[in-house]
Amino acid sequence: MPIYNAPLADMKFILNDVFNAEQFWQANENLAHLDAATAEAILEEMAKFAQNVTLPLNRTGDEEGAKYENGAVTTPAGFKEAFKQYAEGGWIGLGADAEWGGQEMPKMLTVLSDEMLFATNPSFMLYPLLSVGAGMALNSYGSQAQKETYLPKIYSGEWSGTMCLTEPHAGTDLGIIKTKAERNEDGTYSITGTKIFITGGDHDLAENIIHLVLAKTPDAPAGSRGISLFIVPKFLVNEDGSIGERNPVGPGSIEHKMGIKASATCVMNFDGAKGYLVGKENEGLAAMFVMMNYERLSMGIQGLGASEFAYQNAAQYATDRLQGRSASGVQSLNKPADSILVHGDVRRMLLNVRANNEASRAFAVYVGQQLDITKFSTDAEAIKKANDRVALLTPIAKAYLTDTAFNATLDAQMVFGGHGYIREWGMEQCIRDLRISQIYEGTNGVQSQDLIGRKTIKCNGEFIAEYIQEIRDFTNALDADLNFIKDATLDAAAEVEAVTQHIIEAAKENPEYANGAAVDYLHAVGLLSFSYMFARIAHAAKDKQGEFYQNKLGLARYFVQRILPELALRITKVKAGSEALTQFSEEYFTTQS
Amino acid sequence: MPIYNAPLADMKFILNDVFNAEQFWQANENLAHLDAATAEAILEEMAKFAQNVTLPLNRTGDEEGAKYENGAVTTPAGFKEAFKQYAEGGWIGLGADAEWGGQEMPKMLTVLSDEMLFATNPSFMLYPLLSVGAGMALNSYGSQAQKETYLPKIYSGEWSGTMCLTEPHAGTDLGIIKTKAERNEDGTYSITGTKIFITGGDHDLAENIIHLVLAKTPDAPAGSRGISLFIVPKFLVNEDGSIGERNPVGPGSIEHKMGIKASATCVMNFDGAKGYLVGKENEGLAAMFVMMNYERLSMGIQGLGASEFAYQNAAQYATDRLQGRSASGVQSLNKPADSILVHGDVRRMLLNVRANNEASRAFAVYVGQQLDITKFSTDAEAIKKANDRVALLTPIAKAYLTDTAFNATLDAQMVFGGHGYIREWGMEQCIRDLRISQIYEGTNGVQSQDLIGRKTIKCNGEFIAEYIQEIRDFTNALDADLNFIKDATLDAAAEVEAVTQHIIEAAKENPEYANGAAVDYLHAVGLLSFSYMFARIAHAAKDKQGEFYQNKLGLARYFVQRILPELALRITKVKAGSEALTQFSEEYFTTQS
Repeated sequence: MPIYNAPLADMKFILNDVFNAEQFWQANENLAHLDAATAEAILEEMAKFAQNVTLPLNRTGDEEGAKYENGAVTTPAGFKEAFKQYAEGGWIGLGADAEWGGQEMPKMLTVLSDEMLFATNPSFMLYPLLSVGAGMALNSYGSQAQKETYLPKIYSGEWSGTMCLTEPHAGTDLGIIKTKAERNEDGTYSITGTKIFITGGDHDLAENIIHLVLAKTPDAPAGSRGISLFIVPKFLVNEDGSIGERNPVGPGSIEHKMGIKASATCVMNFDGAKGYLVGKENEGLAAMFVMMNYERLSMGIQGLGASEFAYQNAAQYATDRLQGRSASGVQSLNKPADSILVHGDVRRMLLNVRANNEASRAFAVYVGQQLDITKFSTDAEAIKKANDRVALLTPIAKAYLTDTAFNATLDAQMVFGGHGYIREWGMEQCIRDLRISQIYEGTNGVQSQDLIGRKTIKCNGEFIAEYIQEIRDFTNALDADLNFIKDATLDAAAEVEAVTQHIIEAAKENPEYANGAAVDYLHAVGLLSFSYMFARIAHAAKDKQGEFYQNKLGLARYFVQRILPELALRITKVKAGSEALTQFSEEYFTTQS
Repeated sequence: MPIYNAPLADMKFILNDVFNAEQFWQANENLAHLDAATAEAILEEMAKFAQNVTLPLNRTGDEEGAKYENGAVTTPAGFKEAFKQYAEGGWIGLGADAEWGGQEMPKMLTVLSDEMLFATNPSFMLYPLLSVGAGMALNSYGSQAQKETYLPKIYSGEWSGTMCLTEPHAGTDLGIIKTKAERNEDGTYSITGTKIFITGGDHDLAENIIHLVLAKTPDAPAGSRGISLFIVPKFLVNEDGSIGERNPVGPGSIEHKMGIKASATCVMNFDGAKGYLVGKENEGLAAMFVMMNYERLSMGIQGLGASEFAYQNAAQYATDRLQGRSASGVQSLNKPADSILVHGDVRRMLLNVRANNEASRAFAVYVGQQLDITKFSTDAEAIKKANDRVALLTPIAKAYLTDTAFNATLDAQMVFGGHGYIREWGMEQCIRDLRISQIYEGTNGVQSQDLIGRKTIKCNGEFIAEYIQEIRDFTNALDADLNFIKDATLDAAAEVEAVTQHIIEAAKENPEYANGAAVDYLHAVGLLSFSYMFARIAHAAKDKQGEFYQNKLGLARYFVQRILPELALRITKVKAGSEALTQFSEEYFTTQS
C-alpha cells in the first residue's frame, strides 16, 4: 500500500525559517491569536488525520467510486465517517471567521494542512473544499440573514456547498450561460437549467447541500455583465433553520472520469427550483472572483500534495528495488544487485520531484501570506501591494504548480518501471487524480491568458515590475556564498523583465500575439518564482548546522543546474511570435493529412 | 464516440514522395514483388479494418477489460471475432516469410499498417504483436523442425505467442532471473518459476499459446551469460501437429493496470512445464535481441498511433466547440461564440501534436527502411551501414517517439478542457493506454542508457558520426528556398556532434556522468532526427502544387520555431554534469523533509 508521511519538518522550516511566520502573525493584530507552537500543533493533528483516515480511503475510493442510483449519489465506503470526523475536528472552518464558527487561521497555515489532505485523498478533499468556497462567496456577498442561515451549518459540516457555473455549451465563456432565473412574487427566483461538472452536486455526506448558482434573469444584459448569483438549497430551510421541503434540483447523472472517481461530478438539473439572490442582480461574477484566488491557489496545492505523495513512494521504491549495478562498480556486494538509487537517471527523476515540492511549498506559503495581508492587514498600502501580488501570482499558483507537479508525478511513476503502471502501487491513480487540476477552475491555458492579458499587458507590466523589484531587493542582499542562486535569480529576473517588455510591445502591433505566447510566458514567470523561492530557502538554510539545511542548498543547486535552464527555452518560444500559428486556415486542422 | 480516419494521404506522401519507396523496392530483388499500388491497397484495407473493426472495440474493451476467472483469461466482447478476422486477413504474417505463410512485406510498409491498429485499439494490437515477436525469434534461432511446427500456426493466428522475460525481482536486470530449466532425459527441459507482466500470457483468442521463456539451467554461468531460451506451449503439440495435453503453465492472475485494460497482462506460473530449448544453452539473450529492434520500433509506432488518434479528435472538437471570441474580433457573427480554433494557444497545442505525428511517421518509415536493408539487401556494405543505423536509432524510435507522443496526447486532451477528463470522449483512455509505451520493452530511461552507452560511448561516437554525415549530405544539397530548415538542421547537427564529443570525453573522467545525462542526450538526438525528417518532408513538398504540400512547409516552419529550440535546453542539461545528482547520500532520498 502507498505510504505517506506528512513532510512536517519542511513545513516548519518554511513557516519558521523561510517566512518567519510567527513574527508576521504577532505583528498583525488580527492574527496575533496564533503562535508557532499552535500552528505546529495544528499541522501535527492534520498529519494524523491524513495518514490515518484519508490515506487508507484513497485507493478504495478510487476502486469503488461515487455512485449514482435512483436520482441520488452515494460516496464510497468510509467517506461519510471520515467527513464527519473532519467536520467535528473543525477543519472545514479552519480559515473561516470565528463569528460563523471558524478558527480564523491564516492561509499561510491552511495551505499546508490542505496539502496533506490533497496528498492523501484528493477526491475526499474536494467535498470540504467546495463548502469552503461557497462559504467564502456567501461571507463576502450574502446578506446578514443569509450568512446566519447558511454559514454556521456549512462550517460545521452539517451542510455542504457547491459552485454551479458550467453548462454543456459554456465553460470558460460564462457569458453565454442559459440557466434562467425568473422572479417570483415573494422576492425569490425560479431557477431552471442544466449545469455540468458540479463537484459534490449530490452526495450522502451532509444533510443539505447549498448550491450557489449562476443564472440570468429574463431582462439581463447579454454576456458576462448579465449574470446573477443565487442560493439554491437542495432542501429549503425553514424559518427556524430546520430542513424543509425538497427543492426541485438534483443530479441527472454523474460523470465517468479519468480520476478523482470518489468525488461526485454531477450533471445538475434545476426545474424551477427556488433560489435566493446573493448580492445584486447582474453582479454575480464579482462574487465568484472573491473566492477564485483562494480556489485557484488550492488547485496548486492539489499539485503539491500529489507530487509529495509521488515523491515519497518513488524514493522508497528506488531504495528497495535492487536492479543492476552502479556505473562506479558494485555498491552492495552482499546483495544480488544495487539499489536503483545508484543510477544518476533515477536520481534525476527523484530530484526533479523533490525540487518541485520544496519550491512549490514555499511558493504556496508565500502566496498564502499575500492573501493573508489582503484579508488581515490594517495597512492600506500593504493591502494594495498584496492585492497586486495576488492578482499576478494566482495564475502561477494554479497553473505552474499543477503543470510542474503533473510532470513530477510522471517522473515518480517512471522510477517504478512496470510497477508504476499497476494500480496497487498507487502511482497511476495519483497521476489520474492530479490531471484534473490542470483543467478545472479555468484550464492552465486560460490561467496563462489571465496572466499575460489582464495581469500584464492590461496594467502595462506594473504587477510584474513590482514583483521583480521585490525579488531583486531580496536577492541583492544575499551573501556572496549564495552567489550560485543569487546570480541565477537575478539573471532570470532580467530575462523575465525583458521578455515582458517584448510582449507588451508586440501585443500593441499584433492582437494575436499574446494568446499563443501565454503558456510559455507563464512558465517563464513560474521558473523565476521558483528561483526566488530557492533563494529564500537557501538564505534561511545557509548558516544553520546539519545535513537537513545543507541539503536545502544542494537542492537549490540542482534547481539552478537542471531546472532553471528551461527559462531560456520558454523565452525563445514567447519570442517566436504568432505567425507559425496563424499561417494555417481553420480547415487545415481537420483536413486529413 | 471518438473518430478515426486513417491518414492515408500523409502515409502515401511519406512512402512515395519522401522515401521513393517503390523505387527502393524495385531496386531490391527481394522486395521487387511490391509496387506502390499494392502497398497503397494494403494500407487502404487496413484503414477499413481499423476504422470498422478495432475502433468500435476500443472503448468497450477498456470498460470491460480482460477478465481472469477459474485459471483462465477471457478477452472483452468482440475481440475474438476481430482477432479471427485479422488473422484471416493475413495481417499477422504481413511481414513474415512466405515459407511460413507470411506476405514478406517490408517494415517500411508494416509500420504504417501497425500505426492504424495502434491508433484505434492498442490493447487489441498487443495480441498479434507478441505473436509476431515470438515468430521472429523462432524464425531466427529455432530449428527447422521448430519452425515447421510453430510458425505456420502462429502466422495463421490459430496459435499465438508470448515473450516471458520479467520476474518479480528482475526486470531490466535479466541476469538475476530465477526461473529454472532442468534437463529431462528425453532432451526436453522442465521449466519452473514465475514470470510477471506477460502480455497475452493467457486469453481466448487462439487455441494454443506458444510461450518463449528465459530460464537458467542448473549449471549456467551467473548473470546474463547464463540465460537460455525455451519454447513452452500452453498445450503440447503432438507429432502430427495436433494439440496434445495441457502443459503445467498458466496464469496465476492478471494485473490491474492504468490502461491497455483489454490486453491481458499475466502473472505466469511454470510448474515443471515441458520446454524445448531454442538455439543453444546460455545463448538465450541473443535470440531476444534479434526481435528487439522490431519490437522497440513498434512501441514508437504505438506512440504515433495514439498521437494521431488524439490529434484528429482534438482538432474536430476545437472546430466544433464555440467559446469566447478571437483576439482579432468576432469571427463568426451569426454564432454565439467563435470556434476555439481562433485562439493561438489552442492552435499551439494542435500543431505540437500534428508536427509530432508527421515527423514521427516519417521517422518510423525511415527506421523501417533501414531494417529492410538489413533484412532484404544483398549488399554487405549497405547492410553493415544499416545495422549501425538501426542500432543507433532503435532507442530513439522507442523512447523519443513515445515521449513526444505522450506529451502530444496531453496537449490534445487539454484542447477538450473539462470534457477531456470524461471517459466517453476517449482522450483519457488514449493517454492511459499510451503511458505504458514509455515503460515497457525497456523503460525510456533504459533506452537512453543504451543510446549513450553501447551505441555512443562504446563505439566512440562512430554510429552518430555516420548518421550526422548522412544528415549533412542530404541537408547541404537542399535548395536555398529551404534555408529555414536547412540552417536549423545543420545547426542542430553541429550541436549534437559537439555534445557527443563532450559526453565521450566526460565519460572517460567520470563513470557517473553518462547515466544522468542519458535522457537529455536521447532527446537531443531525437530533435535532430525530427529536424532531418522535416528537411526531407520539405524537400519532397516544396515544388509540388497545392495546399497539402504548402502546409507541409508551414508545419516544418512551426517545428523549427516552436519545437526545435528545445535542443539547446537538452544540451545544457547534458553538460550540467553529474555532481548535482551524486552530491546526496542514499539516505537523503527517503529522509523526511
